[in-house]
Amino acid sequence: MNKEKKIAVVLMSGGMDSTLCAAIALSQGYEVAGMHLNYEQRTKAREERAFNEICDFYKIKKRLLIDVSYFKQIGSSSLTEVDMQVSKADLDSSAIPTSYVPFRNANILAISTSWAEAINASALFIGASQVDGSNYPDCRQSFFDAFQSAIDLGTKPESKIKIITPLINMTKADIVREGAKLGVPFELTWSCYQNSDKPCGVCDSCALRERGFRLAGLEDLLAV
Amino acid sequence: MNKEKKIAVVLMSGGMDSTLCAAIALSQGYEVAGMHLNYEQRTKAREERAFNEICDFYKIKKRLLIDVSYFKQIGSSSLTEVDMQVSKADLDSSAIPTSYVPFRNANILAISTSWAEAINASALFIGASQVDGSNYPDCRQSFFDAFQSAIDLGTKPESKIKIITPLINMTKADIVREGAKLGVPFELTWSCYQNSDKPCGVCDSCALRERGFRLAGLEDLLAV
Repeated sequence: MNKEKKIAVVLMSGGMDSTLCAAIALSQGYEVAGMHLNYEQRTKAREERAFNEICDFYKIKKRLLIDVSYFKQIGSSSLTEVDMQVSKADLDSSAIPTSYVPFRNANILAISTSWAEAINASALFIGASQVDGSNYPDCRQSFFDAFQSAIDLGTKPESKIKIITPLINMTKADIVREGAKLGVPFELTWSCYQNSDKPCGVCDSCALRERGFRLAGLEDLLAV
Repeated sequence: MNKEKKIAVVLMSGGMDSTLCAAIALSQGYEVAGMHLNYEQRTKAREERAFNEICDFYKIKKRLLIDVSYFKQIGSSSLTEVDMQVSKADLDSSAIPTSYVPFRNANILAISTSWAEAINASALFIGASQVDGSNYPDCRQSFFDAFQSAIDLGTKPESKIKIITPLINMTKADIVREGAKLGVPFELTWSCYQNSDKPCGVCDSCALRERGFRLAGLEDLLAV
């Protein structure tokens, strides 16, 4: 392996978007360091399997799995008006729904920048899109630009870490088309929020995926 | 309790600086929500005890303890690597000290902003100082300003969360003097990076604390 190769940290959820991100980083000559976050979500094990299979496919050796289940504590805190105890009781309660985590992408970028700085990476790929799906404030390019300034000012002078958002203006159909062009193994990815054996076909994520393949005029091998 | 009271999330490590921050937030009329992070550092349990005792002292009810031991995975820090030596104090050095966790304050700000948004807080107090001791890039006001822009752009339009850094231009001696004025219970705080029973007296943090009290001409009850 070329030791001069530039390293890119790629946030890899195991889904389609971030897998395309990894393919793009590789096509640009980066050595990819794959970072996978889990937060005790329902399909955690399935997504982790997808992450590893995709890394195996691309022969990605640098892998880091990070537990950010603190998202659950914060998510649930918005639903509880009672005083919060310091105990981990909140974590143990499976009754508390934890959907939206405010400012999640900032957390993700901060963690991945820390790793990028630790391993001397020069780029940070994140598969956010501001056109398709939910209109979260921290999915917009203007937010990423602001975070870039925070990185420039908050890391060591010799660190030069650039956030790269190659999918920012892509629809899911664009992602399918671009992935097909680059030979992305979409059949290894996992999108369903609900199931871990067979995609449910009805959750938001399954619906977005189905529409993307349909509009791109391509077949989703995972759904066959 | 007055329901109209504005809420401030205060990052409370259990040390002197963040305890002064809590006192300042309270003196400005905020209801304080105390957030404490641990990352499997050597003195974790002792710092957690300090956090709780300080919250008890100030009757702070909203408390959130977050495990960020992923810092340990990212590594490259003497605070988290058990087999790395904590460097001896060299207060005049302008080098970045070995206790540096890459981009740590960004992680901390991202987490606390998430909580602030979840509980409708309007302020976020962090006891960073850019004048005394450690030359962390993410302890400078310019970094906090950049992160403020990321917060403004990355949170919901109705969220107005302001980072407040009341200690940013204070030396440790200033902090001791201001704390004394506000009746801060410094004897409940913990600063030592090394020990949990009796301060070691030689680590960076102990040296800074000792110098602060000495220059302020006050007695550190913890050291007596």
